[in-house]
Amino acid sequence: MVNYTIDKESDTPLYIQIRDAIKDAIKSGELLPGDRLPSVCSLAKEIGVTQATVRRALQDLSDAGQACCHVGRGTFIQDGSGPTSAPDRMESIGAARTLGPSERAPHGSMEFAVRKLRMGVGKALRDIMSLAEKSGIIHLTKGVPDPRCLPENFLAEVAAEALANFGTELYEATDPLGNYELRREIARRFTAEETPITPDQVLITNGSMQAVTLVAEANMEIGQRVVCETPCFKGITDTFSAMGHWVETLTRDSHGLGQAQLNQLPPDLSYLLYICPYAHNPMGTHLSEERAGILVDWARKTGSLIVADELFKDLGWTGSKPPSIMRELGPEQTVVVSSLSKSIMTGMRLGWLISSPQRIQQLAQLKKLMDHSAPSLIQGMALTIFRSGRYDAHTEKMAEVYRQRRDAMLKALDRYMPKEVTWTRPDGGFSLLLELPRGYSSVALFLSAIDKGVAFLPGPLFDIDQRFVHCCRLSYAWPDEAEIKEGIELLASAVEDFLRRPPGDSGLSGLGSYH
Amino acid sequence: MVNYTIDKESDTPLYIQIRDAIKDAIKSGELLPGDRLPSVCSLAKEIGVTQATVRRALQDLSDAGQACCHVGRGTFIQDGSGPTSAPDRMESIGAARTLGPSERAPHGSMEFAVRKLRMGVGKALRDIMSLAEKSGIIHLTKGVPDPRCLPENFLAEVAAEALANFGTELYEATDPLGNYELRREIARRFTAEETPITPDQVLITNGSMQAVTLVAEANMEIGQRVVCETPCFKGITDTFSAMGHWVETLTRDSHGLGQAQLNQLPPDLSYLLYICPYAHNPMGTHLSEERAGILVDWARKTGSLIVADELFKDLGWTGSKPPSIMRELGPEQTVVVSSLSKSIMTGMRLGWLISSPQRIQQLAQLKKLMDHSAPSLIQGMALTIFRSGRYDAHTEKMAEVYRQRRDAMLKALDRYMPKEVTWTRPDGGFSLLLELPRGYSSVALFLSAIDKGVAFLPGPLFDIDQRFVHCCRLSYAWPDEAEIKEGIELLASAVEDFLRRPPGDSGLSGLGSYH
Repeated sequence: MVNYTIDKESDTPLYIQIRDAIKDAIKSGELLPGDRLPSVCSLAKEIGVTQATVRRALQDLSDAGQACCHVGRGTFIQDGSGPTSAPDRMESIGAARTLGPSERAPHGSMEFAVRKLRMGVGKALRDIMSLAEKSGIIHLTKGVPDPRCLPENFLAEVAAEALANFGTELYEATDPLGNYELRREIARRFTAEETPITPDQVLITNGSMQAVTLVAEANMEIGQRVVCETPCFKGITDTFSAMGHWVETLTRDSHGLGQAQLNQLPPDLSYLLYICPYAHNPMGTHLSEERAGILVDWARKTGSLIVADELFKDLGWTGSKPPSIMRELGPEQTVVVSSLSKSIMTGMRLGWLISSPQRIQQLAQLKKLMDHSAPSLIQGMALTIFRSGRYDAHTEKMAEVYRQRRDAMLKALDRYMPKEVTWTRPDGGFSLLLELPRGYSSVALFLSAIDKGVAFLPGPLFDIDQRFVHCCRLSYAWPDEAEIKEGIELLASAVEDFLRRPPGDSGLSGLGSYH
Repeated sequence: MVNYTIDKESDTPLYIQIRDAIKDAIKSGELLPGDRLPSVCSLAKEIGVTQATVRRALQDLSDAGQACCHVGRGTFIQDGSGPTSAPDRMESIGAARTLGPSERAPHGSMEFAVRKLRMGVGKALRDIMSLAEKSGIIHLTKGVPDPRCLPENFLAEVAAEALANFGTELYEATDPLGNYELRREIARRFTAEETPITPDQVLITNGSMQAVTLVAEANMEIGQRVVCETPCFKGITDTFSAMGHWVETLTRDSHGLGQAQLNQLPPDLSYLLYICPYAHNPMGTHLSEERAGILVDWARKTGSLIVADELFKDLGWTGSKPPSIMRELGPEQTVVVSSLSKSIMTGMRLGWLISSPQRIQQLAQLKKLMDHSAPSLIQGMALTIFRSGRYDAHTEKMAEVYRQRRDAMLKALDRYMPKEVTWTRPDGGFSLLLELPRGYSSVALFLSAIDKGVAFLPGPLFDIDQRFVHCCRLSYAWPDEAEIKEGIELLASAVEDFLRRPPGDSGLSGLGSYH
């Protein structure tokens, strides 16, 4: 035990006494890198000082690189050069790459400080977004489906049908795995498109976020390194972080991750890799078959698990849809997550997870302890949506709607955007990623764009380290074709004005590494 | 870093080489008590051996008291006398007390082994329970409400009304805090009965299990010691364990925890204490006002947080309901959790959590990352159930139904049960706890009872350490009064036969400490 005895009569400030007690314990080996300190609250109680005093002491240690605060998990001892033992071997990837090459040498506590700063910036960014909440703005922002696209009384009819079909069965909680008939229906659909699976390979969750939460929580024991492709929907990386993981990132291009990115990972470890292979959010493009093959080979070689988020799978245009990663890699090394949130509506919170029967059993036990099961009525309604043909009819209709809106956006971009600007060409989904010339901040552009009457989401919202500062996500999920055309025209005029200024001419452009 | 280099050509078995490498690292101070070892999977990969070999090595260390496997979290180094630093100071309480006084000295790894064994026994017990799934058995087992007690078409009418009232608003996900009107309704009801609260003190969850999950996950950073009264619904203690906490238990009597139990906790620490103050599951009794006062004083003195599970609050008989702990202790030190699962139905998975605005904000952020929000339709339906008067009408009706069933059970127990047997007298809820003379196992009794045609839940199912072997939970939630009378008569005859045998005459009686 560390001896925290302090002398309240001494001239030495209390926080310095505490700081030095911890430093001594590190020197003597009582505390080792990776050790977790007691919480601020219990340290304060144990030593008999205020929490502010303890925080002050920890701040000093953190500044000196001898401790780091891992958000959501407490304060850990460091060796003064690295944040924990984990990132030591990872210096070529992820957060480390957010520093310029010359700064790379003494990463570690710096890396943590940078990430923490960026988390604060993230909050500020979300506050800035609220500026777009005024009337007359064309929103190229929304990442969820427009409920007005559903047939009138959709939910009322589905609820009534489900209750008529399943009756009081829906009054009681289901097995934590979920309604068996719903699991069978999902298994049947996956089997028809991909590779044969059984209902015991399906777990029903409260949206795909909970599917990722279960995988993240289970991995606390398994201990695979968590890697996410980036850009990435930040809900995913934030969830892995909140569950206690340090998240590494690999930058993808519009085809997905390539061999060069995977080579940045030490080959002697096994990983949990999160990817969004269909109509990637925010890029809108599918993972190419060639890149899928590279990922499968890498996963086999390293014994890694690939978590494939197939949220947009049924909202792609026909002809270009690659097979699921699971078809090649098999269920032992793949987790497929999906939900009705993009295809039908977000309000149902109905998702699912497909993997090996053994993993499904383990995750169902966790699900049982976390919230027992998904609401029975919602599960019955999902089954009704699938079985009645509504799912296929609606996704087919909406894929065509979104394709037309994408075409309208691409056409307007071609016509109005300055030639220095580039963008991805979505294979499906809701959005594309637009790239300004390096050095121009999407956050600064956002502020002038809403003055012109159009809003989008700045790139830093799609990366745990707030990179992609020169990128913008433009969504065509809600506006109609005329609004899209007008929105892009307004945005192009904001971009034109903006590019007349020299690059880097914005306080917010210093946020990221511009790659 | 521990040096795990092994010599595959050596005559020394691989697992012994690994075990000794870890022992050496402990001796040299490289590994300290409380340190977590890498996962079995990654150790196996790093060393280049099979996982079975690593497990064998860890088993040896565990047998020697130098490591312990904390379920769901991995393997931790121990000093050979205690399981982690936590229970060292807790020797007088909880799991330690499951050992006889003479065995108490070298607890630690023993304690963990015992708890692990009991978790295995718990699974076996649940398998045994399935023996009751045959026709003609009177079930005094169910801890959930009977959906047949609800008015016909209840769910269909509520769903239709909610959709008529709130329309397409229910198609989109709500704020992670939940539907504002529902939060306002819950705040209004709590204010009317207890102490004024505002909607920003209410968070909507997927059942009360998720409310407990959020509190448990948030406490991973705060670090208060987790203590649960026992007996206790095992879902609660299992959830705290799965989220990474070591759960201590204090034995309650039918009035709740007393000063003597609280005195077993070191007074210089602060705790997270879980209690079920209304119609306790399984005892059925309310926390007495005197005991509530003792708990409030203790919480103030130690700065502890009390999690009060008010699941059965509205299913008590009028006149005996004490005020909520929050009225005296205040929202900063209280979390109230509740749900519709006992009062209306389990299938909705709709619960809530009441605390300080600041804690609600923190927990909502976690909720957002775990599964975003509760399904909007389910929230709209809960609001409809409250606003339409259905909630009050149904709970009032059911409280009377359950009171009559309780009376039928108490009357039958008085009439048929041998005089050595005692039981609690429920103030509400679904069940009572029956106590056999010490030394008689409820598990053995269960087997003869189902032969006679009646089933109940054995006491070990209500304790994380499988104690309360001589106790039985008898539920009157589902059977009608005639079935209850017949069921108790059958049970009494099984008990009579059973008590003719000498105590301890059962392989399963060795499970617990009989207190």
